[in-house]
Amino acid sequence: METTNSIPHVLVLGGGFGGLWATRALASAPVRITLVDRTNHHLFQPLLYQVATAGLSAPDIAAPLRHILRRQKNVTVRLDEALAIDLDARRVQLAQGELDYDYLLVATGATHAYFGKDEWAEHAPGLKTLDDALAIRSRVLAAFEAAEREDDAERRRLWLNFVVIGGGPTGVELAGTLAEIARHTLPREFRRADVRSARVHLVEAGPRVLAAMPPDLSEKTRLQLQKLGVEVHTGEPVTSIDADGVSMGTTRIDSHSVLWAAGVAASPLGRQLGVATDRAGRVPVAPDLSLPGHPEVFVLGDLASVQQDGKPVPGVAPAAKQMGAHVAGVIRDRLRGGAGHAFRYRDYGNLATIGRMAAVVHFGKLKLSGLLAWWFWLVAHLFFLIGFRNRIIVLVNWGWSYWTYQRHARIIVGRGETQARSTRAA
Amino acid sequence: METTNSIPHVLVLGGGFGGLWATRALASAPVRITLVDRTNHHLFQPLLYQVATAGLSAPDIAAPLRHILRRQKNVTVRLDEALAIDLDARRVQLAQGELDYDYLLVATGATHAYFGKDEWAEHAPGLKTLDDALAIRSRVLAAFEAAEREDDAERRRLWLNFVVIGGGPTGVELAGTLAEIARHTLPREFRRADVRSARVHLVEAGPRVLAAMPPDLSEKTRLQLQKLGVEVHTGEPVTSIDADGVSMGTTRIDSHSVLWAAGVAASPLGRQLGVATDRAGRVPVAPDLSLPGHPEVFVLGDLASVQQDGKPVPGVAPAAKQMGAHVAGVIRDRLRGGAGHAFRYRDYGNLATIGRMAAVVHFGKLKLSGLLAWWFWLVAHLFFLIGFRNRIIVLVNWGWSYWTYQRHARIIVGRGETQARSTRAA
Repeated sequence: METTNSIPHVLVLGGGFGGLWATRALASAPVRITLVDRTNHHLFQPLLYQVATAGLSAPDIAAPLRHILRRQKNVTVRLDEALAIDLDARRVQLAQGELDYDYLLVATGATHAYFGKDEWAEHAPGLKTLDDALAIRSRVLAAFEAAEREDDAERRRLWLNFVVIGGGPTGVELAGTLAEIARHTLPREFRRADVRSARVHLVEAGPRVLAAMPPDLSEKTRLQLQKLGVEVHTGEPVTSIDADGVSMGTTRIDSHSVLWAAGVAASPLGRQLGVATDRAGRVPVAPDLSLPGHPEVFVLGDLASVQQDGKPVPGVAPAAKQMGAHVAGVIRDRLRGGAGHAFRYRDYGNLATIGRMAAVVHFGKLKLSGLLAWWFWLVAHLFFLIGFRNRIIVLVNWGWSYWTYQRHARIIVGRGETQARSTRAA
Repeated sequence: METTNSIPHVLVLGGGFGGLWATRALASAPVRITLVDRTNHHLFQPLLYQVATAGLSAPDIAAPLRHILRRQKNVTVRLDEALAIDLDARRVQLAQGELDYDYLLVATGATHAYFGKDEWAEHAPGLKTLDDALAIRSRVLAAFEAAEREDDAERRRLWLNFVVIGGGPTGVELAGTLAEIARHTLPREFRRADVRSARVHLVEAGPRVLAAMPPDLSEKTRLQLQKLGVEVHTGEPVTSIDADGVSMGTTRIDSHSVLWAAGVAASPLGRQLGVATDRAGRVPVAPDLSLPGHPEVFVLGDLASVQQDGKPVPGVAPAAKQMGAHVAGVIRDRLRGGAGHAFRYRDYGNLATIGRMAAVVHFGKLKLSGLLAWWFWLVAHLFFLIGFRNRIIVLVNWGWSYWTYQRHARIIVGRGETQARSTRAA
C-alpha cells in the first residue's frame, strides 16, 4: 500500500449511480478513495434500451470513470472485480489483487435474473450492460436479416415475431421502440420480407404494465403501446422459453427473438456480508445505510434493501444517487466525530418513455402522457446525461432519428455470435 | 427463385468499395442485383484506425448496406457468406442457401495475414473489420488499466510498451494516434502509472515507412512520427511474436500490446476461381477485369491482381471504386450486345495521416506534409464518408477531440475477452 496510510481509505465497489455519486460527494473530504469497477465506464442505464435498439452508439451513453473523475485528486480508479469481502480483516479480494479499507461502500447493483430458470438466459437475453445491449441489437437486426433471406413464408413470419418479457420501464421501452423500427425505420429497405407485418408482444405476469405508476397511467401506457402496434399481454406469467418461442400456461407465442426485461437479482457480493438477504438478494441495512454490526461498511443502490413508510425504496437511479450522497455525508460526519443519521428517500416522481413521442410522467399530483410527457422525459434525460459532449451528440442523434425515423447505429458487431445463432436457428 | 428470371441476375459478393460502387453504377441497368455481405454494413475502412483508437464509434464509420441502397429498387441485400463458387453451374453456395447468377462479381477483398505464422494472430491482432477495431480498442485501453493496477514498477513499464508492426498507412496511423493518446489524452486521468512514459514502437521490415510514397515524404513521415513520440524501426523484419513481446533477429521489444498492420492476404474465395493466384492470393484478371475464360465473372477490388504500366494497381479505396464502376459499365455494354473494354486506373494521388495535425499528401507534382496536409486529409475523408449524418457526427467528434484532446469512445466492450487476457498476462 501507499505511504498515505494515516489518511482513511474509502474503498468503493461499483461505479454506477450509487458508487459514483458517493465518490464525488467525498471530493473535499480528508480521505483517499479507490473506486473499483469491472468495466472502465459509468453507464447511463436509463438510455441503455436506445443502444439495444440501435438509436445510440455505446459511447454515447457511457463515459470512462477515470475521465469523469480526472480532476478529483483523492480518487484512484481501478478496473478490477471484487470477488470476496473479509469483514473482520477489512480487506477485499479482487480478481487482480487485494485492497484494505477503512470504509467500504458496496454498490455493485443488480443484474437480470430468470427466477431460477437459468436455462432461459440463452433464449431470452437480458439488458443490464453495454455488452448486453450490443448483443440484443445484433440479435434483433439479425432476425430481420434472416426474414429477408428466408424463402419459406411461415419461417419468415416467425423471424418477424418479437417477444419482450416484463412490463416494467425497460420492457415498455424495448417493445415500443421495436414496433417503431418495424413500422417506420425498416420497411423501405427490405425487398422480400414484409417488415410492417412484424408483431411485437409485450408479456407481463402482473395485472398491468408500469406497476410503479398509478393505474390510470398504466392504462394510458397500454393504449399508447397498442397504438404503436405492440400486443400487450397482462396477467400472463411465462412458464417456459425455448429457441422457438415462449409459453404462458396454454398460450404459446412462436418467436426466435425473445428479450428478457423481467427479473432482477442483486449482485452476488451481497451474500458475503453476513446478513440474510431478501428474496432478490438485497441486503437489509441500518437506517444510515450501514451494514448492521459493521458501521464502517455501507450498502447502497440496487443492492440495498431499504424500507420507508412501509414501502421499499425503488431500484431507480435517483434513489441510488441520493444514497451515494447520504453515505458520503455519514462518512464526513464520522470523520468529524459525529454519528450517522438516517437516510430518507425523496421521491421526485416517476417517468417512463414508451416510444416515438409517447411517454408517461407522474410527479406528485402532476400526471402527463403522450407527446408532452415525451418532451418532459427527453429534457430530463438529456439533462442528467453525464458529460457535456455526450449531451450534444445524443441530441444530434435524436434530432436526426426524429426527423428521418432512422436509427444510425444499426450495425451488427460480434459477427461470430450472430452467425452462429442464425445458422443454428435457421 | 422469383418469377423475374428473364431479367439477368447480377450477384455481387462483398459490400466494400468495389461491390457497392458496382451495385450503385447498375442502378438504371435492366438487371436485378443481389448484394451479399457477411456483415450488414458498408465500412469506411480508411477511418477504421479511429475506431480502434477510441476517437470514433463503430456506427460513425459504417452504414447498413440496405439503408445505403434503400432507394435502388433493383437490389436485394442479403446478409450471408459465400462459401463456394460453381463456375460451370453458375451458382454460389452460401452459408444459408444458394443463388444462381448470370453475372458474378467477386469483391470479397482482403484480410490481414501473418506470412504463414498464424500463431502470431493471438498476440498481434490485425485491423480489417469493426470487430477487429473494437478488440484492438479494448486491448489497448486494458493495457493502460493494467499498468495503473500494477504494483511492480517493471511490470508496469511493460504494460506501457506498445508495438505496431507494419509501416504502411494503417501502421503509421495507429502508432501516431497511440503516441498522442499516451502523451495528451490520458496522463491527467491516471494516478499511479506514468502514462507519459509510455513507448510506442513502429516496426517496418522494409527500408522506409509509407513505401508507396516518394522517399522524401517517407522521411518527413518518419520525422513527424518521432516528433509525436514514436520510435521508428525500419529494415527490421519481425522474426517472432509471443505474449511478452516481439523479436526482430537479435533485437527484442518487450510488450503485451502488439498490433499487426503488416501482411494482407486476399479473400480465400479467390482460390476457387480455377486460376493460379499470386503470392497474396489475388486473382489475375483479363484487361476488362473478367475472369479469363469466364466473361460472366468479374473480380474486383483488393481481390484482383491488375497490372498497369508494369506496376500493380494498389489495393486502395479509389482503385476499388473505379473497378466497381468499370465492371458495371462492361455489364451494361454486354447487355446492349457490345464487348467489354479494358480497365484503366486513374491515380489521383496518395495521402496518409500520421497523427494530430500531421499527414503527408502526394498528388501528381504536389507534395505536402504537416498541418496543411492534415487539413487536406481531413476534408477529403469527410467528403468521402458515406451518409450525410455520419459526416456531421464525425465532424462534431473530431472538433471535440481536436480542442480537448479527448477521445469520446474510450469504452471497453466485450468484457469477457479483455478480462481473460488481463488475468492471463498479469
